[in-house]
Amino acid sequence: MLCDFYEFSMANGYLKNGMHERNVYFDVFFRKLPDNGGFAIAAGLEQVIEYIKDLHFDAEDLDYLRSKGIFDEAFLDYLKSFKFSGDIYAVPEGTPVFPYEPVLTVKAPAIQAQLIETFVLLSLNHQSLIATKANRIVRAAQGRAVVEFGSRRAQGASGAVYGARAAFIGGCKGTACTLTDELFGVPASGTMAHSWIQMFDSEYEAFKAFVELYPDNPTLLVDTYNTLKSGIPNAIKVFKDVLLPMGKTECAIRLDSGDISYLSKKARKMLDDAGLTECKITASNALDEKLIRDLMMQGAQVDTFGVGERLITSQSSPVFDGVYKLVAVENSAGDIEPKIKVSENTAKITNPHFKKVYRYYDNESGKALADELCVYDEVVDDSKNHLIFDPNATWKTKELYDFTARELLVPVFRGGECIYQSPSIDEIAAYCANQVDLLWDEVKRFENPHKYYVDLSQRLYEIKSILLNVHKM
Amino acid sequence: MLCDFYEFSMANGYLKNGMHERNVYFDVFFRKLPDNGGFAIAAGLEQVIEYIKDLHFDAEDLDYLRSKGIFDEAFLDYLKSFKFSGDIYAVPEGTPVFPYEPVLTVKAPAIQAQLIETFVLLSLNHQSLIATKANRIVRAAQGRAVVEFGSRRAQGASGAVYGARAAFIGGCKGTACTLTDELFGVPASGTMAHSWIQMFDSEYEAFKAFVELYPDNPTLLVDTYNTLKSGIPNAIKVFKDVLLPMGKTECAIRLDSGDISYLSKKARKMLDDAGLTECKITASNALDEKLIRDLMMQGAQVDTFGVGERLITSQSSPVFDGVYKLVAVENSAGDIEPKIKVSENTAKITNPHFKKVYRYYDNESGKALADELCVYDEVVDDSKNHLIFDPNATWKTKELYDFTARELLVPVFRGGECIYQSPSIDEIAAYCANQVDLLWDEVKRFENPHKYYVDLSQRLYEIKSILLNVHKM
Repeated sequence: MLCDFYEFSMANGYLKNGMHERNVYFDVFFRKLPDNGGFAIAAGLEQVIEYIKDLHFDAEDLDYLRSKGIFDEAFLDYLKSFKFSGDIYAVPEGTPVFPYEPVLTVKAPAIQAQLIETFVLLSLNHQSLIATKANRIVRAAQGRAVVEFGSRRAQGASGAVYGARAAFIGGCKGTACTLTDELFGVPASGTMAHSWIQMFDSEYEAFKAFVELYPDNPTLLVDTYNTLKSGIPNAIKVFKDVLLPMGKTECAIRLDSGDISYLSKKARKMLDDAGLTECKITASNALDEKLIRDLMMQGAQVDTFGVGERLITSQSSPVFDGVYKLVAVENSAGDIEPKIKVSENTAKITNPHFKKVYRYYDNESGKALADELCVYDEVVDDSKNHLIFDPNATWKTKELYDFTARELLVPVFRGGECIYQSPSIDEIAAYCANQVDLLWDEVKRFENPHKYYVDLSQRLYEIKSILLNVHKM
Repeated sequence: MLCDFYEFSMANGYLKNGMHERNVYFDVFFRKLPDNGGFAIAAGLEQVIEYIKDLHFDAEDLDYLRSKGIFDEAFLDYLKSFKFSGDIYAVPEGTPVFPYEPVLTVKAPAIQAQLIETFVLLSLNHQSLIATKANRIVRAAQGRAVVEFGSRRAQGASGAVYGARAAFIGGCKGTACTLTDELFGVPASGTMAHSWIQMFDSEYEAFKAFVELYPDNPTLLVDTYNTLKSGIPNAIKVFKDVLLPMGKTECAIRLDSGDISYLSKKARKMLDDAGLTECKITASNALDEKLIRDLMMQGAQVDTFGVGERLITSQSSPVFDGVYKLVAVENSAGDIEPKIKVSENTAKITNPHFKKVYRYYDNESGKALADELCVYDEVVDDSKNHLIFDPNATWKTKELYDFTARELLVPVFRGGECIYQSPSIDEIAAYCANQVDLLWDEVKRFENPHKYYVDLSQRLYEIKSILLNVHKM
């Protein structure tokens, strides 16, 4: 029932008008990249799959809808035995994706395609947003570990749980969210809050009790009273008094306030001077990719970045604007008729038709060169040179040679049956890291990145032009 | 299990150290107002109550925790029969609240107070954020209806469902989220997507089919092809051909792209010229309080604003920074010892002790004058004049006279039992509107609002000063 009300109004209308069994094609695509970045990371497909497999309407739902007084009993009967029977194609989670290309395509009877819209968008928009942001932050950290711990500032429970999942896909090494570990195997970890320190008569006693309890790589929070004068000296003393005598050397301190660049360098020196060269430094407090980039430039001595609210809400750019648009309809003869949505805002004009998406990789460097949207039955032969062109400036052409073409959309549902096995979360994260490696550095720049090519095939371009002419303003 | 992992580490530690039954006091408060506004709206309490009532750990949860290899069996046994046994005080949902005052206080055994932290924060932070944003947008609309429809851009499913609930508390008149209607009775509504129009051979036929199906106040989306040349003329024709002959006049059109100020005035004129003076105009497309304020200033002819992503994510300020801080501990003699958290960042210093919060209303105007944080057993007699002072500039004093004192925190749980009956969602929304009316306009300004007074009582101020001196830097 997590569904915009108008989906029910429309679905009821399709049934009433005898259009419900007509096959339609919807694309999910987005228009703007969060943070004006060069690419996004697709995520959230696994939850879409679970949702569609499980989608049903129980007696209470039907009673609720009936109480609205606008739905036909025939429609409520239809919902009672609802089962998705369509096809879905999608890019695998962890794939870098670009504006205006389909990341998921639904082919299904109109009534079904409409009813799944809200959740499909919600899941892909949310997780792609967080995976994209996480990937930015992880890239800024240049190999230092980034851990997600924003649950308490997330926008709702699923924001926390699935956000932590998406952050791992984007490259985070772990989370504070226990449930995400239990459900998905994203490693959960955590140290102590200030309340732990305050519960004891002294900071030293609080640290000592903690290290005695958790001697395997304990992290001590050193800013409850005074980081340099009290926190770090007490931590050093406890590591020496308690940890080293156990024969253990793995440990860490955590800075959670103050100037991280300054404090981390001071802390590193204090720890090294005390012989605790293996003690790591974790930093948190309003971090994001921009602050981490600056901290790295300044030589901050941080081994692990803990990132909270600015990651779990993608604070600087908290909306992923994926939309779900009708691109084709099957007519009574079974032919696929492309459809377009025109708009005063040219950015809102859609790419019509049932499509496939090719990504072209340069064989020499391995790097991704461009994506091309083609009509569903077009085939690109990558053993031959291939000419692509910019659909907004058709004189800008590029001839590809010595390249490999890969189809991005893979079949997920066929005739209502799920035929896709979601990879493990570790596999998705590894795939994501690998695919991001295959993008040129220019596309990965934070400021003013190079705009990756997403072109239309000649045939698709012509179809779009004809439809635009039909609906000329 | 939606709980930061360190809560389990600490809880296990409290048990191990025999501190788990010690009563502690935690405050939830926030530091910064979203969008640099003058106040926030508290929301999310009902979900906190449900969570605490239901909190338990099942066999799978315990197996998962056991697999981590760091928790004592005694702790896992404790969790197996976990039941919250503490007290909770909170401000009712819909109350305007200000930085640094407790919106919720927990008194509970340490282990329990720690385990509920993550969810308590998550729920209050999320819903207070959205209620606050909704209230801003509703105020900008100056009495025109605002409807929430951002589910598809929400940060996860609960972001959508509880966000729509919070938006209603903040003053929205409805939502597109069906589930929020089913669960909470927030009226859900919706019209049609562009896909409905595209499914028919013409826009006219699509409109006609819709109006025939839903003749009670139908809203037609007029921007699929061309708003002024096609959408509005077709809508007018269908209203005249189909709706009026049914004896019905209530109807609306919806603008979803283009310049809303320009198009709404043009649309109003076209509708009026056609005699459809009762036809309302709904507008959507990237609206928030700033754009709505400007549209109102320009005389846009909009009756209902549909607000999506900028509300459901509080896009311009997507984090509510509520924290959960230890403020007191019961010692072995049963006395309450106040605790403080000091910090290099002065903004991170806490107000110690178990507290109550008074709000003072001027009897003449009815307006709220100031809040005062007092020690839990202080009593303010509002039949006498009362001197308050600014804790950051103690020479700034104000004598209150002819005023009414109201305690903001009400008992919610006592000894683990819920003793609070959540009002209905309509009651909460009405209470919120009423309380916002009692704030001075100066506090409600969007830009540079007046800073509402949140003072400390003399006794609380002295306790804080002493503790700060103990932990002098």
